[in-house]
Amino acid sequence: MIPAGTAGPPAGMTGPPGIERINAARERTAGIVRRTPTVPLELGRGGPTLWLKLELLQPVASFKLRGAAAAVTAAPPEATRAGLLTASVGNMAQGAAWMARRLGVPCSVVVPETAPATKLERIADLGASIIPVSFDRWWQTFVDRTYPGLEDRFFVHPFLDTEVMAGNGVIACELASDLPAEVGTVLVPWGGGGLACGIAAGLRELRPEIRVHAVEVEGAAPLAASLDAGEVVSIDHRPSFVDGIGAKTVFPEMLGLARKLLAGSLVVPVSAVAGAVRLLAERTRVVAEGAGAAPVAAAALLPPRDGAQTACIVSGGNIDTAKLIEILSGGVP
Amino acid sequence: MIPAGTAGPPAGMTGPPGIERINAARERTAGIVRRTPTVPLELGRGGPTLWLKLELLQPVASFKLRGAAAAVTAAPPEATRAGLLTASVGNMAQGAAWMARRLGVPCSVVVPETAPATKLERIADLGASIIPVSFDRWWQTFVDRTYPGLEDRFFVHPFLDTEVMAGNGVIACELASDLPAEVGTVLVPWGGGGLACGIAAGLRELRPEIRVHAVEVEGAAPLAASLDAGEVVSIDHRPSFVDGIGAKTVFPEMLGLARKLLAGSLVVPVSAVAGAVRLLAERTRVVAEGAGAAPVAAAALLPPRDGAQTACIVSGGNIDTAKLIEILSGGVP
Repeated sequence: MIPAGTAGPPAGMTGPPGIERINAARERTAGIVRRTPTVPLELGRGGPTLWLKLELLQPVASFKLRGAAAAVTAAPPEATRAGLLTASVGNMAQGAAWMARRLGVPCSVVVPETAPATKLERIADLGASIIPVSFDRWWQTFVDRTYPGLEDRFFVHPFLDTEVMAGNGVIACELASDLPAEVGTVLVPWGGGGLACGIAAGLRELRPEIRVHAVEVEGAAPLAASLDAGEVVSIDHRPSFVDGIGAKTVFPEMLGLARKLLAGSLVVPVSAVAGAVRLLAERTRVVAEGAGAAPVAAAALLPPRDGAQTACIVSGGNIDTAKLIEILSGGVP
Repeated sequence: MIPAGTAGPPAGMTGPPGIERINAARERTAGIVRRTPTVPLELGRGGPTLWLKLELLQPVASFKLRGAAAAVTAAPPEATRAGLLTASVGNMAQGAAWMARRLGVPCSVVVPETAPATKLERIADLGASIIPVSFDRWWQTFVDRTYPGLEDRFFVHPFLDTEVMAGNGVIACELASDLPAEVGTVLVPWGGGGLACGIAAGLRELRPEIRVHAVEVEGAAPLAASLDAGEVVSIDHRPSFVDGIGAKTVFPEMLGLARKLLAGSLVVPVSAVAGAVRLLAERTRVVAEGAGAAPVAAAALLPPRDGAQTACIVSGGNIDTAKLIEILSGGVP
């Protein structure tokens, strides 16, 4: 059991962002993040139309730059002068490293030993320092919001931070103007929960009729388990190639937000995610990582009516080429 | 030697489009084609920045829908009532089939026997009829602008047509608003020449300082040979996985346009194109076909100054999965 929340974040920094804060994040990050396209994918005649929000086209190949950019630009200059620090399996690391390079300050990243090679290489390419630790020590960083010897660094929390969620919430603004009125469901990968809750917080005000579901993968679905149990539970975590999402537990604050903002969590088999990666490469001509393809796999779990017009957040594209080859060949890494 | 131009197109239909005609095509096709994003790809510190126009995100995974949509919407309804006809290795076939489905009329496509399976499957999926013929008989269709027994069909010429080029020229409008002022060069795949000449016709008026180069692949570069010779020549054509471009010769009218509108033709090795497909998958997270990746390979041939800020038209993404796997594995199909 992980002692979540023992240190605790500064008060007032972890609630869901309102639309004013999301709009402010949109203005501050406009020259940094990309306004990504939303493209339809028709699944056969009479089948559902999926609207794909292509966050893999962001500069660091994932949505994580949105939160990093929002948090860093909201901070006063003296707060980031000594550099940035984050804890990440790879995507937020790239977001923070990108922002550090932009500011001209150092960046350090605490990663679990299981982080994939492609992501580590890209973090190093961006000039950040990598601190590999055990999974549990890594998770503890989300609680502590710092790391021994780097207490002067500005910590970019990958999910439990109002500004980070506001940055992610900008996706809701873009969806609100890009999606047809028929879309009733948005499917969002759940790792720490900052993406799903940020988007849901925005849509709640912009398109309140839309239901937002989290998406998790079998063997790594603590949100579904915690929602079922009515309290935070830890699961027996089974790693897979879907490395961008999936933890052992859920932060209490994030479970509270999920209950308030989300319609539930859909849990998809790892093999279905591999099929979705293949489908996206063959039909939409994009390379998604497992986490990014998971919502496309989850669309098949919706009741037919709900699935008729559904939007999927294709959150990122950082996948090892060897794993991509295995998937395109019909395998599951 | 192919008896090009013996039948000849109707007068006044094959000149380069002016900006008014391009703007008219833009308005008519706005609800049909996608306004594609232009994203930067940085090739290392101090290296050139390539701006990638992602036409592979079009509904049929290539730019060809632009020309098909422009030509069909410019025609009076009675002209298209009996259905559409085109000749294509696969991409314009999908563009025409897409428009035929939209109009609710039949579509037939003359293809060379060497057309790749993926493209043929997608043509069939869109409900079009396929007429496989020899390479020379296929090329003759571009001259005749019809096919025996299908004389009542509206022929969508894949390149030698002012409206088709106007549809392609809409890309110039989008580039003019998306590209920074530093971009001095645009690289465009050359198959029949309609894409390069359409874009160059638009940029000539919108951004006259930009130079447009055609891009061909070794063993299939009749434009470079014809420009060198000062007249239309036929080459010893060597097929490769780069099936979206590369013919045995050039239409005289297109050579005339190329001389007037283009800065020349860059010829890239097939292996460099495979490297560019791999680079685009790993760095930009998109699946490009050989023709679409060829401009990225060609950027390396530019003098350093010219290459500093260059735009590449990533024209399409219709590649067989088996070939994609081979390329990602480091091979050249």
